[in-house]
Amino acid sequence: MSVVRHSVKRGAYHDSVVLMQLQRKLGELDGVEQVGVVMATPANLALLAESGLRVEKAEARSDDLLIAVQAKTAAAARDALARFDELAASRRSAAAVDYRPKSLATAFVQQADAQWVLVSVPGEYAAAVARQALDGGRHVFLYSDNVSIEDEVALKQRATERGLMVLGPDCGTALVGGVGLGFANRVRRGPVGVVAASGTGLQMIACRVHARGSGISHGIGTGGRDLSREVAGRTALQALRALAADPETGVIVLVSKPPHPEVVARLLAAAASLGKPVVVHFQGEGQAGRRLGPLHFAADLEDAADLAVDLTKRTEEPFETDFVGALRGLFSGGTLASEALLRLEPLLPEISSNLDGPSWSGVFEFADVTGHAILDLGADQFTLGRPHPMIDPRLVVDHLAHCATDAEVGTVMLDVVLGDGAHPDPASIFAPAIKAALESRKGDFAVVAVIVGTDEDPQEVARQRAEIEAAGALVVESLGEALETAVRRALPAPDVSAGVDAGALVRPAAAINVGVELFRDSLADQGVAALQVDWRPPAGGNDRLAGILARLRQSE
Amino acid sequence: MSVVRHSVKRGAYHDSVVLMQLQRKLGELDGVEQVGVVMATPANLALLAESGLRVEKAEARSDDLLIAVQAKTAAAARDALARFDELAASRRSAAAVDYRPKSLATAFVQQADAQWVLVSVPGEYAAAVARQALDGGRHVFLYSDNVSIEDEVALKQRATERGLMVLGPDCGTALVGGVGLGFANRVRRGPVGVVAASGTGLQMIACRVHARGSGISHGIGTGGRDLSREVAGRTALQALRALAADPETGVIVLVSKPPHPEVVARLLAAAASLGKPVVVHFQGEGQAGRRLGPLHFAADLEDAADLAVDLTKRTEEPFETDFVGALRGLFSGGTLASEALLRLEPLLPEISSNLDGPSWSGVFEFADVTGHAILDLGADQFTLGRPHPMIDPRLVVDHLAHCATDAEVGTVMLDVVLGDGAHPDPASIFAPAIKAALESRKGDFAVVAVIVGTDEDPQEVARQRAEIEAAGALVVESLGEALETAVRRALPAPDVSAGVDAGALVRPAAAINVGVELFRDSLADQGVAALQVDWRPPAGGNDRLAGILARLRQSE
Repeated sequence: MSVVRHSVKRGAYHDSVVLMQLQRKLGELDGVEQVGVVMATPANLALLAESGLRVEKAEARSDDLLIAVQAKTAAAARDALARFDELAASRRSAAAVDYRPKSLATAFVQQADAQWVLVSVPGEYAAAVARQALDGGRHVFLYSDNVSIEDEVALKQRATERGLMVLGPDCGTALVGGVGLGFANRVRRGPVGVVAASGTGLQMIACRVHARGSGISHGIGTGGRDLSREVAGRTALQALRALAADPETGVIVLVSKPPHPEVVARLLAAAASLGKPVVVHFQGEGQAGRRLGPLHFAADLEDAADLAVDLTKRTEEPFETDFVGALRGLFSGGTLASEALLRLEPLLPEISSNLDGPSWSGVFEFADVTGHAILDLGADQFTLGRPHPMIDPRLVVDHLAHCATDAEVGTVMLDVVLGDGAHPDPASIFAPAIKAALESRKGDFAVVAVIVGTDEDPQEVARQRAEIEAAGALVVESLGEALETAVRRALPAPDVSAGVDAGALVRPAAAINVGVELFRDSLADQGVAALQVDWRPPAGGNDRLAGILARLRQSE
Repeated sequence: MSVVRHSVKRGAYHDSVVLMQLQRKLGELDGVEQVGVVMATPANLALLAESGLRVEKAEARSDDLLIAVQAKTAAAARDALARFDELAASRRSAAAVDYRPKSLATAFVQQADAQWVLVSVPGEYAAAVARQALDGGRHVFLYSDNVSIEDEVALKQRATERGLMVLGPDCGTALVGGVGLGFANRVRRGPVGVVAASGTGLQMIACRVHARGSGISHGIGTGGRDLSREVAGRTALQALRALAADPETGVIVLVSKPPHPEVVARLLAAAASLGKPVVVHFQGEGQAGRRLGPLHFAADLEDAADLAVDLTKRTEEPFETDFVGALRGLFSGGTLASEALLRLEPLLPEISSNLDGPSWSGVFEFADVTGHAILDLGADQFTLGRPHPMIDPRLVVDHLAHCATDAEVGTVMLDVVLGDGAHPDPASIFAPAIKAALESRKGDFAVVAVIVGTDEDPQEVARQRAEIEAAGALVVESLGEALETAVRRALPAPDVSAGVDAGALVRPAAAINVGVELFRDSLADQGVAALQVDWRPPAGGNDRLAGILARLRQSE
């Protein structure tokens, strides 16, 4: 019959990795069956109880350290508890070889060249430490989780004002100028820059880029919530702009766990205007196709890495956007309409369509359509009692004529479907209508026609194409090309406001670590001067006092 | 001031394309401003009114033909109405060159070698015609829309019982043995077979495959609703099996407008077991990555065509599935867990995960997990007060040991993340745990380990890999490889029940057309003996009488 004994150390703080090491050492002692060494939070007490280490009446507070031992005999349990102080002290004396500042303020003086502060203290204290770091003019790698979203937004606003970056909270990994922060694989430096709201995503991509013989310029973790509606991709936007300005980066990868659709649109619009190819992998999101201008959509992490490496070997055409006017798609093919809608929605979430259902049912009026819209003119509501527009395209050209009279519209996309069953000579209908539409406007209007046909179709595709081109339309053979042109004319010109200090992406010569010592060790291993702050919960963990201190600091 | 005049032809039926042609001819007469030639349905009368051709007191019924003319003078309008009979008669005499049967029954005798019946009569009559065709042992190409979903299911059940196919309703296009049915582009024959719940999708893919120098074996439209929950992909499944058995088809493309998730799983499981590579493009659906075994996921129509053509040039490894037991993913990397979940869900929709939110919150119990599951062991619920499993993988191996004791579990996937910050020697934890787990089972259990690491990582990736492999795990370097193995062991062996008569995919020598004459003409142009049935609405359009007739036929 085994026994459980425990002891409480008032106000003793160690990071969770150190506690794990101490716990493991105690567990190796003779006669010891199970050990728990934890900060005595209610959650941890519950976890201990669950694994059979129920501690009755521990009378410990959250800022106390609790050591609980289950052993074969009471003597073995007592021995183990007695050994704890000795083991902790031996760790401490080894660490005390270098002097450790007790505050960030002192650390800033002692390691004045540190561009980065790594923060991995418990979540409730993390925002205050991060704010201090920003106020000291340092970028922040914020590993801690359980930071409120309000704190995250406030920190990121503060950072942006100062040209600084906050990677996190809950940021597991980053590679800055070749130096890994947090969890990071060692990879060759190279032309691929990564922005990731996803820790192991960044690691997996970096490893695969390395395995394929290429390398990483910088890998910027943003924290998993950066692409939420509230945080609105603040860090991701900064990171994209920083990588766009970085001469070492040739191709950018943007990867995220499922992001908010509004943030998707904002980031894609920014990404399309960077002047560099961007590989996008938004988990679980509909894709804007395989490619749209400089945006290349990956289906998984490996695919993202492979696309990026392939793109480093290619030269891409420049892509410039400038809003000309609303976009209208007038399709006779239902699949083309739905595909156009699905591929445009990530970039133009406000786009409307009769494919969206109820709100469009009933009698259709040209005048009801405003803004960007995709119409499936082969839908029942348009074909009731008349032939399909592939047979009789007059419905399409009527709409085209209407669009030309609407000053809001800048671009019309339409499809010309050839083959058996279709109109014997669509160009005879389309060409004059396109010519008339273009002539009625002063150059602020364009028609893009997708031809679906082959050189064996009875309509003679070459003649169809020539006649429609002669009328002034841009004729393409894939929906992708049509959408690329359409997006170029529907997205606003890029926002070129500066986001971040150029120094953010320099290899850090020095860094300050507040929290998990393991991260300091790994910085040192990588040749970075890394100063560990001997951090303790403020006011000995007394929340009320800590709150007062924080408010005092804020009002300074 | 223009005038509107109209006339009504009792019980006169023409298809909508013929009406369009007559309307156009009347519109070209002197003094005529606008013409409507329509079946006098309430909807069509409303449409006429909307475009300014309001006909007061037309006293026409739905099965009457209404000719409405707006002209500059009453005389011009009268003249145009008078010319109608003459124009209609001249069409009729041209058509009357060949004798036309008035019923399908007669047509079956007259064109006994017709394997296909094309049906494009108005929706309310289409199901009855299609049923007659099936009862006559013919495959059906059902262009008509407005067929009820109950009729669709009944028709497709009837067809399956007879080894026949029903393409449609609302099927715009098909290419059977090189012959286009409905709307179809003329393309080279070749190794790419297409199954499409999407008309212009099939056309676009066929055109692009042709443009890239390859060709189409068969293109099978299923109708837009085939992948709905109710219809459950009946035609798509038949078509997949037919193409799998077809020696001319080397690569299969499966394309659909947004399908129902249950149908997705059913079709993907079938597609994975065909023994041929399948390119999948489900619009707006999350993808199972870029590739999973023989399934290649395309991001858009062009991408689907390009992937298919590329695959015709490669030899793929055989892929065999056999259900061994439930699949468990035990991930320390949150992104790997969510990516695994998102990529497996299309194939295994019943998979559960702590990433799915509320239902998993609270205290976690091993025993609560049943069936396929993906666990993110780095989630807050597991890491509260203990180091992340990348630092301390004991949580993962505890779960692994539990899975080995659970006879339901057949496969465990886990990740081993190396690099700075991670455990200094994960193999020292994983290898003994994997060995013990495998030894406790009788060969019906496997462990697949994804290593995320590089040759520069401090843990020595080669040694990590060797030790974990020596313990008996399958070690891979990409999530895709892990998922492929996992799926192979989690999907049931394929259902090999025959679906369709081998003759379905033979080039049709003859066909019968009921409805839009244009489709008969295009068959004739393609060298197919095409017999037009001189179809009229049954019982002169009297719905009650038609219902009685249909019931009589059904009880025969």
